[in-house]
Amino acid sequence: MSDMRLIVAGAGGRMGRALVRAIAESKGAVLAGALEAPGSELLGKDAGVLAGLPASGIKLSADLWAMSKDADGILDFTVPAATIANVAIAAERGIVHVIGTTGLSGSDNAVIKSVTNRAVVVQSGNMSLGVNLLAAVVRRVAKALDQSFDIEIVETHHRMKVDAPSGTALMLGQAAASGRGVTLDEHSERGRDGITGARRPGNIGFASLRGGTVAGDHSVSFLGPFERLTLSHQAEDRMLFAHGALKAALWAHGKQPGHYSMADVLGLSDI
Amino acid sequence: MSDMRLIVAGAGGRMGRALVRAIAESKGAVLAGALEAPGSELLGKDAGVLAGLPASGIKLSADLWAMSKDADGILDFTVPAATIANVAIAAERGIVHVIGTTGLSGSDNAVIKSVTNRAVVVQSGNMSLGVNLLAAVVRRVAKALDQSFDIEIVETHHRMKVDAPSGTALMLGQAAASGRGVTLDEHSERGRDGITGARRPGNIGFASLRGGTVAGDHSVSFLGPFERLTLSHQAEDRMLFAHGALKAALWAHGKQPGHYSMADVLGLSDI
Amino acid sequence: MSDMRLIVAGAGGRMGRALVRAIAESKGAVLAGALEAPGSELLGKDAGVLAGLPASGIKLSADLWAMSKDADGILDFTVPAATIANVAIAAERGIVHVIGTTGLSGSDNAVIKSVTNRAVVVQSGNMSLGVNLLAAVVRRVAKALDQSFDIEIVETHHRMKVDAPSGTALMLGQAAASGRGVTLDEHSERGRDGITGARRPGNIGFASLRGGTVAGDHSVSFLGPFERLTLSHQAEDRMLFAHGALKAALWAHGKQPGHYSMADVLGLSDI
Amino acid sequence: MSDMRLIVAGAGGRMGRALVRAIAESKGAVLAGALEAPGSELLGKDAGVLAGLPASGIKLSADLWAMSKDADGILDFTVPAATIANVAIAAERGIVHVIGTTGLSGSDNAVIKSVTNRAVVVQSGNMSLGVNLLAAVVRRVAKALDQSFDIEIVETHHRMKVDAPSGTALMLGQAAASGRGVTLDEHSERGRDGITGARRPGNIGFASLRGGTVAGDHSVSFLGPFERLTLSHQAEDRMLFAHGALKAALWAHGKQPGHYSMADVLGLSDI
Repeated sequence: MSDMRLIVAGAGGRMGRALVRAIAESKGAVLAGALEAPGSELLGKDAGVLAGLPASGIKLSADLWAMSKDADGILDFTVPAATIANVAIAAERGIVHVIGTTGLSGSDNAVIKSVTNRAVVVQSGNMSLGVNLLAAVVRRVAKALDQSFDIEIVETHHRMKVDAPSGTALMLGQAAASGRGVTLDEHSERGRDGITGARRPGNIGFASLRGGTVAGDHSVSFLGPFERLTLSHQAEDRMLFAHGALKAALWAHGKQPGHYSMADVLGLSDI
Repeated sequence: MSDMRLIVAGAGGRMGRALVRAIAESKGAVLAGALEAPGSELLGKDAGVLAGLPASGIKLSADLWAMSKDADGILDFTVPAATIANVAIAAERGIVHVIGTTGLSGSDNAVIKSVTNRAVVVQSGNMSLGVNLLAAVVRRVAKALDQSFDIEIVETHHRMKVDAPSGTALMLGQAAASGRGVTLDEHSERGRDGITGARRPGNIGFASLRGGTVAGDHSVSFLGPFERLTLSHQAEDRMLFAHGALKAALWAHGKQPGHYSMADVLGLSDI
Repeated sequence: MSDMRLIVAGAGGRMGRALVRAIAESKGAVLAGALEAPGSELLGKDAGVLAGLPASGIKLSADLWAMSKDADGILDFTVPAATIANVAIAAERGIVHVIGTTGLSGSDNAVIKSVTNRAVVVQSGNMSLGVNLLAAVVRRVAKALDQSFDIEIVETHHRMKVDAPSGTALMLGQAAASGRGVTLDEHSERGRDGITGARRPGNIGFASLRGGTVAGDHSVSFLGPFERLTLSHQAEDRMLFAHGALKAALWAHGKQPGHYSMADVLGLSDI
Repeated sequence: MSDMRLIVAGAGGRMGRALVRAIAESKGAVLAGALEAPGSELLGKDAGVLAGLPASGIKLSADLWAMSKDADGILDFTVPAATIANVAIAAERGIVHVIGTTGLSGSDNAVIKSVTNRAVVVQSGNMSLGVNLLAAVVRRVAKALDQSFDIEIVETHHRMKVDAPSGTALMLGQAAASGRGVTLDEHSERGRDGITGARRPGNIGFASLRGGTVAGDHSVSFLGPFERLTLSHQAEDRMLFAHGALKAALWAHGKQPGHYSMADVLGLSDI
């Protein structure tokens, strides 16, 4: 198969530039277009140069319809309005749409789903291979172990993060609860402090550390009688998410229309 | 169902006494017999007292045939010769045989297998729930990830351990190799030291730490582009193995004849 | 120097038996007496046998005055009333008094201090070498680094522990605050949960995990720009505290009268 | 003082490009030359462009003598043969030589020392604040603990690293050996594999993990009876080292001839 021809949406932003670099480093994909918002002062600049690479010959443009004529897919980590605008064009062109955009509303998601009978969409709030694999494994381990094992989830992020626990920690908690066949809402233990009493059997505990420039560490421990099993993930750099998106695109190339997740990409659906 | 009646083999040894304590702490099992080698000076002693518990009324005896008359199973962490002697009697009596003995030869294993058409045997070189679950998960993760993720296995044991890597580390390496569809022998990297050159793609690395009184830590890392997934296990005490054996016996009670592993006990065979 | 002759107070209790085992395993010390409360049904029993060892020839007795005649020291992890009763006798006999008893009142401590002009007392709420060393090191590192490094303290204990953070975690927090020249009360961040906002510079964060049978893990992280320093301690077993007490006794043997801490024993006072 | 004029050795490599970026981001330093190996196909390329920056006007050249005519210092993270070749020229020119090269032999180090009566050399296996602080702490802890604690050093680096253990691991080993008052050469245990026998008391063990894109993790454990103390450092990005090297050069500018360490640069000599 010839190289997959990929468009990067938001190619002038931090995540977009990471995607351009990921494509340049990859085998099996080439940069076919670089989308930016109409009116951006970066329009016309070379996408490679913006990404700290040699000139690519691909200039930033706001015209997705034109650039997608010979493309095979689009990597889209932008904002909801831009992503929704891209959905119809990608579907019409019949190209793979990899969506890492977050903050999408229920109606946004309905729009995305409405095209998946004729278009290939891969969508995930977390494009990291490792975290998606971790969630699958956590669910499986939680299913295999009974309540004699206590589940504790710890995450560390940089000092500027404003919420706790992280969304990914909650996603891992959902995976654990799902494996146990319980709801997270009723079995969550957060902000432990003071005279707490003994641990309530079956609860899933959360703790959050904050400091420095940490990109994101997550750890799920199963603490049982005389042994502990700990499953952890560490993100070193945002390039992580770029590589995940690229893998999703290559996987989706040639697939039947449908709405896919990173679990599908990784073959984790059966764990 | 009434309590499972269990015999402990080698009841005067360190592991045997741990098994007696595990049964005393459990629900669903009672001590039905305590086997020791003919000629042992412990014959006739009370198994409970030897284990630091109140008297159990069960005296150590060398006569497995007699004590197994009303028993449901035998927990056997002894030596190969003793285990092989026990196999025929357990099969004849139709009781569950849980085998944690290590160092068995190929012919020893053939003897064990020869009875499994009519007897229930659960056998594993590592009776810890956590390590067996870890191995299953490692195999699955190794299968899900390609060679862009490097696999490294680290283990730590007490200062008296004489071999490296540990048998359990090698078992985890086998699980990783199996997940990748390669043989460990051809993809193993051990004793890294000096000018090694860049890491060979696809290899599975091993490192061993020794010191103090560490009961056994094992960790398998998948190191990829900008992220790491680490799956680790820590044993706190040998009681861990006793509890694993007990769980295996309770699971096997009433099962069809066959040769089962801890993966079967935990329902991990489909991972 | 001949072996140090040591009395174990509370020799029939869990900690007392651990102390008897620690002495049996050691070089440089021998068991010289085994103290129990008047009226205990264990009086007259052999201290070695109670500790799971061969008979030592030392019977439990309630008469400290008699047994201390030829002794060099006493290891005392009991209750405040017993410890205070022992203080005067130990001082009169001129033997080393190692005190690991907790829950002492201000007046109890005043009694202890009152004898230290003529007696050698080593006292600490935590007899673990490692934790005391960790505290000293945390103070030094906190002093060397400025507020561009955030300090986070995490501890894990078994599922039955009823309070959070652990007393040792707070001790480590005090060490960090002292290194920085601030008070912990005004710079403590506990129970992080929900919309917390960005981390407040200079704060010391605490998180507590609970589960399984964990004896006690403590970890102090310094999270700075693009790097992290983490100092951690893990207790495997209560024997840890027995060995710490024994080391303290051997160190104190022959010292000038005074009130010593584990920091003195370890030579940490100048860090 | 006018900006310090710095040459980057190995300017076409990964670390060299990081150094070029660090200089571009800094105040107080400018790029004055870019050295590459004779025969490199990068000779003649612009150092800025190679580093993902705008053109700097500095072309890669193999002629250190020529480019150092008007320079103040050279940042050298290359290979032993290159560094040794640079030593004499830097000394003859009287410019600061910051050496981060690892894998230097005893005779290499003798050559470096031979010029420090007339030249300013700052040499360290690791230019980060955290690692140097870690080394100071390791020395102190090793001094406080006796041989009942086993010392184990583990490091993890990316898959392209060609030597093991890392220079930083050896530096930490030296710190531990120095704290114990022994020589590392006679107490080093590397490449543990096979039937090793029990651990030799007093040895310092090393293990090296390789994989992915890890910038550099180092961990020093003190494993004693029933407890472990682990002191660890994680570098998130190699820019950490580039910034440290730059800090060293600026500190050394104008200093008296001598052989300096990062402990000198950071003012840690009194820990």
